[in-house]
Amino acid sequence: MAAENKVALVIGAGDYLGAAIARRFAREGFTACVTRRRGEGLDDLVASIEDAGGAARGFYSDARDEDQVAELIETIEGEVGAIEVFVFNVGGNVKFDVLDTTTRVYTKVWQMCALAGFLNAREVARRMMERGHGTMLFTGATASLRGAAGFSAFSGGKHALRALAQSLARELGPNGIHVAHVVIDGPIDTAATRELFPEYFAKRGPDGVLKPEDIAETYWAIHSQSPSAWAHEVDVRPYVESW
Amino acid sequence: MAAENKVALVIGAGDYLGAAIARRFAREGFTACVTRRRGEGLDDLVASIEDAGGAARGFYSDARDEDQVAELIETIEGEVGAIEVFVFNVGGNVKFDVLDTTTRVYTKVWQMCALAGFLNAREVARRMMERGHGTMLFTGATASLRGAAGFSAFSGGKHALRALAQSLARELGPNGIHVAHVVIDGPIDTAATRELFPEYFAKRGPDGVLKPEDIAETYWAIHSQSPSAWAHEVDVRPYVESW
Amino acid sequence: MAAENKVALVIGAGDYLGAAIARRFAREGFTACVTRRRGEGLDDLVASIEDAGGAARGFYSDARDEDQVAELIETIEGEVGAIEVFVFNVGGNVKFDVLDTTTRVYTKVWQMCALAGFLNAREVARRMMERGHGTMLFTGATASLRGAAGFSAFSGGKHALRALAQSLARELGPNGIHVAHVVIDGPIDTAATRELFPEYFAKRGPDGVLKPEDIAETYWAIHSQSPSAWAHEVDVRPYVESW
Amino acid sequence: MAAENKVALVIGAGDYLGAAIARRFAREGFTACVTRRRGEGLDDLVASIEDAGGAARGFYSDARDEDQVAELIETIEGEVGAIEVFVFNVGGNVKFDVLDTTTRVYTKVWQMCALAGFLNAREVARRMMERGHGTMLFTGATASLRGAAGFSAFSGGKHALRALAQSLARELGPNGIHVAHVVIDGPIDTAATRELFPEYFAKRGPDGVLKPEDIAETYWAIHSQSPSAWAHEVDVRPYVESW
Repeated sequence: MAAENKVALVIGAGDYLGAAIARRFAREGFTACVTRRRGEGLDDLVASIEDAGGAARGFYSDARDEDQVAELIETIEGEVGAIEVFVFNVGGNVKFDVLDTTTRVYTKVWQMCALAGFLNAREVARRMMERGHGTMLFTGATASLRGAAGFSAFSGGKHALRALAQSLARELGPNGIHVAHVVIDGPIDTAATRELFPEYFAKRGPDGVLKPEDIAETYWAIHSQSPSAWAHEVDVRPYVESW
Repeated sequence: MAAENKVALVIGAGDYLGAAIARRFAREGFTACVTRRRGEGLDDLVASIEDAGGAARGFYSDARDEDQVAELIETIEGEVGAIEVFVFNVGGNVKFDVLDTTTRVYTKVWQMCALAGFLNAREVARRMMERGHGTMLFTGATASLRGAAGFSAFSGGKHALRALAQSLARELGPNGIHVAHVVIDGPIDTAATRELFPEYFAKRGPDGVLKPEDIAETYWAIHSQSPSAWAHEVDVRPYVESW
Repeated sequence: MAAENKVALVIGAGDYLGAAIARRFAREGFTACVTRRRGEGLDDLVASIEDAGGAARGFYSDARDEDQVAELIETIEGEVGAIEVFVFNVGGNVKFDVLDTTTRVYTKVWQMCALAGFLNAREVARRMMERGHGTMLFTGATASLRGAAGFSAFSGGKHALRALAQSLARELGPNGIHVAHVVIDGPIDTAATRELFPEYFAKRGPDGVLKPEDIAETYWAIHSQSPSAWAHEVDVRPYVESW
Repeated sequence: MAAENKVALVIGAGDYLGAAIARRFAREGFTACVTRRRGEGLDDLVASIEDAGGAARGFYSDARDEDQVAELIETIEGEVGAIEVFVFNVGGNVKFDVLDTTTRVYTKVWQMCALAGFLNAREVARRMMERGHGTMLFTGATASLRGAAGFSAFSGGKHALRALAQSLARELGPNGIHVAHVVIDGPIDTAATRELFPEYFAKRGPDGVLKPEDIAETYWAIHSQSPSAWAHEVDVRPYVESW
């Protein structure tokens, strides 16, 4: 039975972008496997996907822990189905001047952004390489492309993740695995950003801030591409963005 | 009646990529307006779109000539309908060492790649700005990103076109016009490239060379994005590409 | 006698950066050949270099005119000496929205930024290739790297020039010719910019705006590099710059 | 007495590039403080600098260890002099396919390339910020700019280091501290690379491979720049390089 399910695994499926991506792939018949490190809300996400007629499974897994990652992938491949789509969406955005960045913060942000990406991607890639197909999508940010003031930790992690995505694309592409990196240029519309930047939202109006479901559409479009014309990097930003 | 047609205008609609893009948008109900500077085959392209149940119109227009461009846009907007999608797809790929590049070649390649893009885009942008919506898509190449040996003329033109697309995106985006640049990294599968690089094709097998219709799908996907998450630059290449 | 002079040719030797570069190389024993299209001040520049103990020659030459360029290089190589250093420093910075950019402006800016660079570089490269050594330095700008709003013409020209510099570097480098591109990120301290942006200058204080002689030092440093470790692209900006 | 010494600190002063940079600054009157994690040869390096008439001090310090870094900087500033120039030159180049990259390797390479850079730079920056001047130079590589096949670990670390250099430049520049990143594009001429790539060396001839002392010259040139025109990123490669 497991063999019949196509799985879309979303590592770091928070309430917004990760959830929207999971929903988007569930709508197309994938069993959405969604993970978080801890916290509540995972059941609600699974339930909301099921209520919409989709299939979903929730897993608590520390994406930075090699053993938990191995167990997660083992469990999903054994009990749910083959991971056809892998989305790495763990965040880690913090802002500190370099002089105020503790070693602990610098290290943790890298663990979340890059090490976790490496651990999960490597484990999934092993399975995809055996099958000769699959899609791996990485969530990038403005900080993936430039080290702005205040972002030594976050841009360090995101730059490393981008490098990983490029190496994976070059190594796995010829084996039929589509690896892409989506650069999300701007804050996403979430409860947190609405509270943090009320004036920003007010000024920008509808569609002026990145909506999770609109971004998710691009993840789906990338997965849908034919192998003669695969995208590797796509940037997305609101129409009003100044960049 | 004209007002009811949504037009997708493809400047430089050769037999391959331009034709495929025109077909893709025609399939969605757009009236495909396709242009070439001269030569045969335009009627065949129009006929093939109509045979598939779509609407199309062919125009001979020298994309580098300001007056012809003005007339073309005037005619289409007056007689066919509002240009909702604009695709600039004029080629210009030549390879010469700098020392063997004549002033005529250097100038003509720029006229085809960049000046023609500017002339057509500016004219269409005027109309789109009045309406407050529209999509402008530019065909880029590997040479848009790097000046390789032998490509001073072509990469000069393509770099300039990329700069134009960026300026347009920043100027017109906030007015509701989606401007994007597609970097096509590798040769497209055409009669000419098949003849030019037979070993390349043989070695790569199916899907190993960029197919026009697969690329066209990405043009459609970009047009379909919601304004909260517009892409500006997307690179596409075959899964086997070494880059 | 001509054969004994080492020439540093500066195309576009205005009163500021071009003049400073000419002075810097003259100080090292080069005969500075400085060109402008027209206008006064060339004699003053030559005189100021000679007063400082250097050698200089002034030439009026339209850098966009193939015949004038051929004649210029012929004259210098025949009457002054071998061009050991070539600096392309023609400006062209204008700012217009795309919709307000005339075809004439778009074309002229490209002629100044890119075509002139091509014509002069090609002519000089022919001589350098025969000799197997030489240095070619191109003045870039922020607009060489991004197409900002208002800069479709200027960034088009500057992007094309950057592509040219890259192609030249790749083609001529293995023959012993060092080609580099200097990205000048910010306004240079000139009478014009002081008048245009008085508050900018006031706010930034000494060293807060790019000084021609400080930039010139980097041109000299690039020329001085050993061939095992040549730079191709160097960006310079004031220490207070926000970028 | 300590206060009178200007210190150039080179973290990761191996026998080649790090040593050459130390020698270059020692020649200009800096006291070269050179560090390695362990191994022999440090005394020889110090002796060779002293034999040439310079001043040097050697330190064993694990650049990845926060406590050792704090102690190192404390000792140098207290006993030798103010660190005026900081060079981060720790390597970490390994090549493995992603699937063969162990978690230990991925982590260690990041610790060497990025964490060590962060720890040392932060500690030195605190002192430089108090003084309002200083130069910080980071050694980059081709892998700083692209994630090639086989380089997920190394390019991850190097991308993160580049992000750090950018954040530092933007945060510290306005306080008078010059931060730059040197992209070394190609293998450096060392005993190890000569043994590893004998054909590469044979084919390229003299000057065909990056010489440590030639690269060091560029570190010195960057340090010598005036604050109105500081470089942030400089790429260096041999004249014969294909890139």
